[in-house]
Amino acid sequence: MKIVALAGGVGGAKLVDGLTQILPPEDLTVIVNTGDDFHHWGLKICPDLDTVCYTVAGLANPETGWGRNNESWNVISEISRLNGVDWFKIGDHDLATHIERTERLASGRRLSEIVYDFCQSWGIKITILPMSDDAVSTIVNTSEYGEMAFQEYFVHQRCNPKVKGFKFVGVEFSRPATGVMEAINKADALILCPSNPWVSLDPILSVPGILAAVKSRKIVTGVSPIVGGAAIKGPAAKMFSELNIEPSAFAVAQHYEGIISHFVLDLIDHDLERSISNLGMKTTTVNTVMKTQEDRRQLAADVLNFIQRAA
Amino acid sequence: MKIVALAGGVGGAKLVDGLTQILPPEDLTVIVNTGDDFHHWGLKICPDLDTVCYTVAGLANPETGWGRNNESWNVISEISRLNGVDWFKIGDHDLATHIERTERLASGRRLSEIVYDFCQSWGIKITILPMSDDAVSTIVNTSEYGEMAFQEYFVHQRCNPKVKGFKFVGVEFSRPATGVMEAINKADALILCPSNPWVSLDPILSVPGILAAVKSRKIVTGVSPIVGGAAIKGPAAKMFSELNIEPSAFAVAQHYEGIISHFVLDLIDHDLERSISNLGMKTTTVNTVMKTQEDRRQLAADVLNFIQRAA
Repeated sequence: MKIVALAGGVGGAKLVDGLTQILPPEDLTVIVNTGDDFHHWGLKICPDLDTVCYTVAGLANPETGWGRNNESWNVISEISRLNGVDWFKIGDHDLATHIERTERLASGRRLSEIVYDFCQSWGIKITILPMSDDAVSTIVNTSEYGEMAFQEYFVHQRCNPKVKGFKFVGVEFSRPATGVMEAINKADALILCPSNPWVSLDPILSVPGILAAVKSRKIVTGVSPIVGGAAIKGPAAKMFSELNIEPSAFAVAQHYEGIISHFVLDLIDHDLERSISNLGMKTTTVNTVMKTQEDRRQLAADVLNFIQRAA
Repeated sequence: MKIVALAGGVGGAKLVDGLTQILPPEDLTVIVNTGDDFHHWGLKICPDLDTVCYTVAGLANPETGWGRNNESWNVISEISRLNGVDWFKIGDHDLATHIERTERLASGRRLSEIVYDFCQSWGIKITILPMSDDAVSTIVNTSEYGEMAFQEYFVHQRCNPKVKGFKFVGVEFSRPATGVMEAINKADALILCPSNPWVSLDPILSVPGILAAVKSRKIVTGVSPIVGGAAIKGPAAKMFSELNIEPSAFAVAQHYEGIISHFVLDLIDHDLERSISNLGMKTTTVNTVMKTQEDRRQLAADVLNFIQRAA
């Protein structure tokens, strides 16, 4: 069974990691958000791609979910000493990824080729694709400060500004990266990982062609990133609230109405199953909180079982 | 007594370090070669400037003379893992200098301003100036491979190719960096450090205006980088030979004929004093080999005494 997962950062990466423990590598393709990519220290940084790759390769920092394990911080501590910009925390091992990617982009190579090569170097056997080889920039519209670049909002301002909406600059001219459309069109089922709907999955679905291809698949399974009204990690629940939507697994399902056919929500939210069913989706309730490695594998198994029952 | 030293990399840096131990910091200005600056990993790298700064700040690697002490190599080892270019050895602490410099240059700041700021951060009290804020690229003309960028010759090919000559691309359009002409014109004496005449000091002297200003000073003291017919470090002696000049302190003095008034050579080369005197230079023989910190201070003291006797 060919599975395509759409993923953002930490939450998506964890479920993908679980899927890699069950599926043969040739059956799993992950399409990763690049809307929060940006330039910093003159380097092209792709936070979600790196989080997914590091996680799958076993190189991720288990404490933070992002960045590298056994990391050292010598470069950034010297940058601080020189009064440089140090609010975006880049560790030494992680930095090599950005330097080498930036070099290869400058030499004219496509991001998807570079990700392919890096995956080879890191021993990753599944297929990881950026949503696009073209630059797309997520802009957060905030009440107090107007429009902000995503990482400025997310990291520098720690998600404090109140959001009014989002914009994916350049997305209308972007094309799905090589392999993206083929993977979706051949997939037996799609999984929308428990990633932020607004700033992780919406950018992917906004790349021209991707939404229509996703909708054309029979089984498209969402997994709620909101559990008991709160986000496991990150600002998803806060964003729903600030957009005057009560944050809940139901709100997530509603966000994807017309796109997904199946929805996985946490046991704790079982009372929402009826209203989600009323949106025309099949539902299942399982433990969706991934604290341990085994939690990742178990949620992946539950999602795959749900899909198999549907197939 | 205001002293201006012209310096390249390791040898120059050592004598400058000795001078800082004797002179009040406001009396010492160092003008550093930037002809071997280049771009690598997308970053602007200034090897001689960094060597001089790190040495004076007490941050230099005492084993190699270049790079940082207590250095770690996590970034480059990850670059290697990604099959990136790893022949130019950049340590993690050193890398921060290149990243921050490149960022500031990209934001429109001049190299000399950046060096000033970095010196403040590193606690350097003497004045260190790049020869120019404009890019100058040393090209080595070789018998086997034709023209090569300097670092390609120097580091990647380990000085193996036979040299036929040198070219400082862009030097005719370069201007002395802010402060350079003023420092030379106010100097009571100039010191040409024991650096490579061909690729460390000639580039400085080739920046329009500098040679004439140097020649206008009454006391210009060269210090031989060739001792007993061999270079202390680097390819200076090999270059002389390949250009059909017998490498010696005499050859160095001859190279600077018409520019320097005084010449410091090693005790071991005392038999060359007469022929150097015949070039119209005053000479002194002292120990010029700087193995220890005390050697640096002693050579600086000897050079300054020689200058003081001349003044």
